[in-house]
Amino acid sequence: MINIRAHLEQSFDANIFIDQQSQTIDTVKIGVIGYGYWGPNLVRSFADIPGSEVIVVSDFKLDRLAKVRSRYPAIKLTTNSQDLLTDPKIDAIAIATPASTHYELALAALQAGKHLLIEKPMTVASEQAKRLIEEAQKRNLVLMVDHTFVYTGAVRKMQELVATKVIGDVYYYDSVRVNLGLFQHDVNVIWDLAVHDLSIMDYVLPSKPYAVSATGISHIPNEPENIAYLTLFFEHNLIAHIHVNWLAPVKVRRTLLGGSKKMICYDDLEPSEKIKVYDKGITVNGSPENLYQMLVSYRTGDMCSPKLDMTEALQTEALHFLHCIQSGKRPITDGEAGLRVVRILEAATQSIQQQGRLIELDLGKVAA
Amino acid sequence: MINIRAHLEQSFDANIFIDQQSQTIDTVKIGVIGYGYWGPNLVRSFADIPGSEVIVVSDFKLDRLAKVRSRYPAIKLTTNSQDLLTDPKIDAIAIATPASTHYELALAALQAGKHLLIEKPMTVASEQAKRLIEEAQKRNLVLMVDHTFVYTGAVRKMQELVATKVIGDVYYYDSVRVNLGLFQHDVNVIWDLAVHDLSIMDYVLPSKPYAVSATGISHIPNEPENIAYLTLFFEHNLIAHIHVNWLAPVKVRRTLLGGSKKMICYDDLEPSEKIKVYDKGITVNGSPENLYQMLVSYRTGDMCSPKLDMTEALQTEALHFLHCIQSGKRPITDGEAGLRVVRILEAATQSIQQQGRLIELDLGKVAA
Amino acid sequence: MINIRAHLEQSFDANIFIDQQSQTIDTVKIGVIGYGYWGPNLVRSFADIPGSEVIVVSDFKLDRLAKVRSRYPAIKLTTNSQDLLTDPKIDAIAIATPASTHYELALAALQAGKHLLIEKPMTVASEQAKRLIEEAQKRNLVLMVDHTFVYTGAVRKMQELVATKVIGDVYYYDSVRVNLGLFQHDVNVIWDLAVHDLSIMDYVLPSKPYAVSATGISHIPNEPENIAYLTLFFEHNLIAHIHVNWLAPVKVRRTLLGGSKKMICYDDLEPSEKIKVYDKGITVNGSPENLYQMLVSYRTGDMCSPKLDMTEALQTEALHFLHCIQSGKRPITDGEAGLRVVRILEAATQSIQQQGRLIELDLGKVAA
Amino acid sequence: MINIRAHLEQSFDANIFIDQQSQTIDTVKIGVIGYGYWGPNLVRSFADIPGSEVIVVSDFKLDRLAKVRSRYPAIKLTTNSQDLLTDPKIDAIAIATPASTHYELALAALQAGKHLLIEKPMTVASEQAKRLIEEAQKRNLVLMVDHTFVYTGAVRKMQELVATKVIGDVYYYDSVRVNLGLFQHDVNVIWDLAVHDLSIMDYVLPSKPYAVSATGISHIPNEPENIAYLTLFFEHNLIAHIHVNWLAPVKVRRTLLGGSKKMICYDDLEPSEKIKVYDKGITVNGSPENLYQMLVSYRTGDMCSPKLDMTEALQTEALHFLHCIQSGKRPITDGEAGLRVVRILEAATQSIQQQGRLIELDLGKVAA
Repeated sequence: MINIRAHLEQSFDANIFIDQQSQTIDTVKIGVIGYGYWGPNLVRSFADIPGSEVIVVSDFKLDRLAKVRSRYPAIKLTTNSQDLLTDPKIDAIAIATPASTHYELALAALQAGKHLLIEKPMTVASEQAKRLIEEAQKRNLVLMVDHTFVYTGAVRKMQELVATKVIGDVYYYDSVRVNLGLFQHDVNVIWDLAVHDLSIMDYVLPSKPYAVSATGISHIPNEPENIAYLTLFFEHNLIAHIHVNWLAPVKVRRTLLGGSKKMICYDDLEPSEKIKVYDKGITVNGSPENLYQMLVSYRTGDMCSPKLDMTEALQTEALHFLHCIQSGKRPITDGEAGLRVVRILEAATQSIQQQGRLIELDLGKVAA
Repeated sequence: MINIRAHLEQSFDANIFIDQQSQTIDTVKIGVIGYGYWGPNLVRSFADIPGSEVIVVSDFKLDRLAKVRSRYPAIKLTTNSQDLLTDPKIDAIAIATPASTHYELALAALQAGKHLLIEKPMTVASEQAKRLIEEAQKRNLVLMVDHTFVYTGAVRKMQELVATKVIGDVYYYDSVRVNLGLFQHDVNVIWDLAVHDLSIMDYVLPSKPYAVSATGISHIPNEPENIAYLTLFFEHNLIAHIHVNWLAPVKVRRTLLGGSKKMICYDDLEPSEKIKVYDKGITVNGSPENLYQMLVSYRTGDMCSPKLDMTEALQTEALHFLHCIQSGKRPITDGEAGLRVVRILEAATQSIQQQGRLIELDLGKVAA
Repeated sequence: MINIRAHLEQSFDANIFIDQQSQTIDTVKIGVIGYGYWGPNLVRSFADIPGSEVIVVSDFKLDRLAKVRSRYPAIKLTTNSQDLLTDPKIDAIAIATPASTHYELALAALQAGKHLLIEKPMTVASEQAKRLIEEAQKRNLVLMVDHTFVYTGAVRKMQELVATKVIGDVYYYDSVRVNLGLFQHDVNVIWDLAVHDLSIMDYVLPSKPYAVSATGISHIPNEPENIAYLTLFFEHNLIAHIHVNWLAPVKVRRTLLGGSKKMICYDDLEPSEKIKVYDKGITVNGSPENLYQMLVSYRTGDMCSPKLDMTEALQTEALHFLHCIQSGKRPITDGEAGLRVVRILEAATQSIQQQGRLIELDLGKVAA
Repeated sequence: MINIRAHLEQSFDANIFIDQQSQTIDTVKIGVIGYGYWGPNLVRSFADIPGSEVIVVSDFKLDRLAKVRSRYPAIKLTTNSQDLLTDPKIDAIAIATPASTHYELALAALQAGKHLLIEKPMTVASEQAKRLIEEAQKRNLVLMVDHTFVYTGAVRKMQELVATKVIGDVYYYDSVRVNLGLFQHDVNVIWDLAVHDLSIMDYVLPSKPYAVSATGISHIPNEPENIAYLTLFFEHNLIAHIHVNWLAPVKVRRTLLGGSKKMICYDDLEPSEKIKVYDKGITVNGSPENLYQMLVSYRTGDMCSPKLDMTEALQTEALHFLHCIQSGKRPITDGEAGLRVVRILEAATQSIQQQGRLIELDLGKVAA
């Protein structure tokens, strides 16, 4: 028996093992900082799609780098993230480190002239997010936040149903996202779980909230809240509520999106029919002046579950990042989106500490 | 062919048609005020159990009285509820009219010396509830509130699991109760739906909340809130949250009850396994002083769904009412329980109007 | 206080209590034989719809008759079903007695000139069913079998989807109908449960089966089979399978109906979306001659759950019976449908005894 | 920036990249034939566990070998499976090629003195399976069939509940395994899907079936059956039924296992509670002689879902294979188990062709 490489070189076109896709000038060279929970997904995504190549990964833990090496022998490794900033071959950097380190790493990357994809939450303070937006604008660099759910077929379908007015005026967004989860030490449950809903809402809903009231509790002394409830107030008859819990016996990922014409149930744990659109609602007859003549009647029709694009979200997102770099287009989940989400997380945390006190958001101002 | 009555009188013991159960001195004579949505259930329950007899029903609508007559030919009917107060044969009155009428009817019934079962919510104001409690105490009459869920096998099982410390310290009570519901004109959704959770919590939880923060919205001009979210604050590491909605495309009735040892999922829409007890939880190692040495580990064991008493709740409740009348015992869902629930509804409504502002409850004082 | 009747006679129009709907010449007078499990539903249905009146009920058990009297004081009662045959006021008879008694009672009723609604299964032998069909034809009487499921919104929707070719050619009908059930002594589980599927298939499918192979087992000595499996063979690429069990820990009522264009999942335990239509299937490319060039590709599109008519099936059925009596129209579930179902039950029972041996059905002949 | 290898060699213990676990004499060297659907799982499993090392993979498709190379650069590759037989370093061979090729490859491997793990179904004919068993016995080699489900926590729990008589006498095994699946050209749906249930039954049930009756249909001309139903007959009041379909709109993987004391529902699609044990059943009173005095009463108690070992089945199985090689122990899923399953598949296929005709199995003889 002979080694297959030698064997194949004799009898077949061995190129399939060497250059699976031709390298062109346009290939975006990516450096990834952080190879813990999420980093491996970023590396895999950029490695799998055409148009990008991951050339360096950094992490301060050697056992993680060993995993990169075993999986991707061609990728260079380093324990020092500074190495990526000074590498002229790197076009763009993806940051997948703990949230508290995002700002410093991101600012340095932008200052080094690298396009940037930052894990959510973008930063741990809205002032930091603003500073990054300014820096990217000044240098004309792409600044994208990894709000992954925005790139799922399910969320894009919801956005389409809202934008095309299929569901009519939006009445509420109501999400339950609970499980027996990984308690974190540095951020509370809203920074870990509600961040998903806030990024989805930022993309799907027709307007931005003006204030938040939140409550929560920690069941471990000196640790951040592990259960929290957020209510977001909007103009024009719209309300949103988010319900997160790290200490639930069952896993739930269910969002109700109610409109004047139709209502959506989005269950992310369903293997196939994640989005169900109910032709249900109310019809109000009578004049608002005369309370007792107001008649609410109920409407129930078909339920339909549209076919969804099943492309993996991260793949769609990675392609979008490349496209923005090459076209100069602004990402769907740009720095402003990241900032708005951070601002709400910040305000919600403040509200929790004051047991539900209403905190104004001024998102128009923060995003300006 | 002959009429069966005549036929049977000749050849069989016709008594089966006349006295299905022997009347004893102890039979409690009941009058029911209101035969709309809930009244028929009360009449059926008191008619079906031994020890009570419904002798009069009042309602101001003739078509409803016609239904009583067709179903229970022996029950006397009246359009005037005053008739029940002056009838010396009536021992106890059950009130199943709209909430806004409870106080006046209930006070008159107590003043007429009748034991009382009042539909929930007990009254529309806590001052009214206090007055009824005083009147019942003064006259030594049973005052019971129809918190029906407390008498279900599922809720009694939860109470047992909490009281016997099977679930350990209680960490949270979290309920979602939504559907496409009957919009009401006089009360908002919390008086209609959250009232169930508040009555369950009053029975099941080891302590009473000290404050509430609530948010909500109305989607119909000048109508009460059709969506609301309540957070209840307790001493000792316990929080509760209630989530109610009249405008949801799906019906959900699910409560999570988390404890330090076990966690319960109570799904009232499950036909058989309504209560599931999960041997899940967290174990915290390390000293609170040293944040970064706190280790949270997760525990997952068996799940068990205990067999529940499937007796209809209203039947258990009606028997309990009779028992209290005959024994002088205080009902599980007494006036104080009714008052506490009304006080929370009142405070939550106030909090909603102020977008989540914390309202103190002083339940110790109100119930004293 | 006064009795409501006297009270109302003084002050109101008391007629509402006497004649809720005017009697016309067309009202069909019904006699019901048997007031056990199903009889009460028949009485209620004919009592509730306009156009019919139940005037006599017979049952040989006095306690059951007592229930009729308490619920419907105006209905005459008898322990002797012969009384109904000789009563000239009775136009039609509904039989809800055990299956083994159907034939004798039904034949006598037809011979007495009464229209007939028979509980399913129509008879316990196909020869009996044929004889009843002949008798009804001879006398020009309506002979209808109570295949209740045929009158549900769900089954009518399935029939419509098949008849209008929405699902394309029908490939299979596959039903699971299991629960912890009431073991019966006189018939096996297929006569109790599979009868529902056979009646649904008789209505929904485009053709009739030509043979059956069935297997089963009894877990109680000398008792009929409590588990059984039936395969029904059809011409033109169609197969059906029915799966029934009285000894299952969970209740399942699920039917898959596969077609060349779409596939239906009918879950009768779903509270609202009982019918789901999947735009799924296969596309075959290539010529049958060349096995290895046949390519099967899969198609997946939207899933839709159409709104169903939620009218209670028995009400629709009762109205249909009245309509057939008045118009002379043949019922959807006529004697021939009943006969076909009995013939399959008979053949399946025979096949079970021979451990799956194929039994020809000759339904064309039996129904001719 | 420097390459991490060079970097680490200077400053850290680079051994972590070279020898993650010390090689001992006992390490079993594995060759894998076939890298299509299942081969990658076998390679991964043997690569991940201690005690084995995959040293060669063969496949006749170059693109598949390319995948091995990218994932496992150290594994030798070949397009010629004969290379594995002649390689003296290889101790054991795992075969994951189409079923029709198993026999020839397996026989050659045994004759070359290699221990053997064969993908299920073991062979396409029982005579072939017998021949392999003989060869392995003669040469004292481990012959194991990859009945993967047997090594899942769920199936092992079922086996334990049966073996320890927790569920009492076993009454039935009833499985539904349907989906919109990959139509195969060379084998019908029972060889693809029912094989799982047959291997589970072989492990879990207390006895072996004596006969089979099966029915089925093909919806594509000249292609094997895509829907099939099998009934298996056992002595002592036990029956089994398997229900498989490649053309179902929904995916179902549900097995009911009924016993005289308890009943199990095994749903493999449940993310966590795959096994539910119901304390349900019937109690029969009365003497079999007197039919009408037999009383069947129903018993309903708690439902419990035991915690399952969540170790990946293939990992448990791979360790078991190594253990058998090193200890000379007979595998749980040995050649005889593989043969029994093949014999039933063979007989069922024959029965399908004769529309349900009972085929005797003589498993005692085949396995002797």
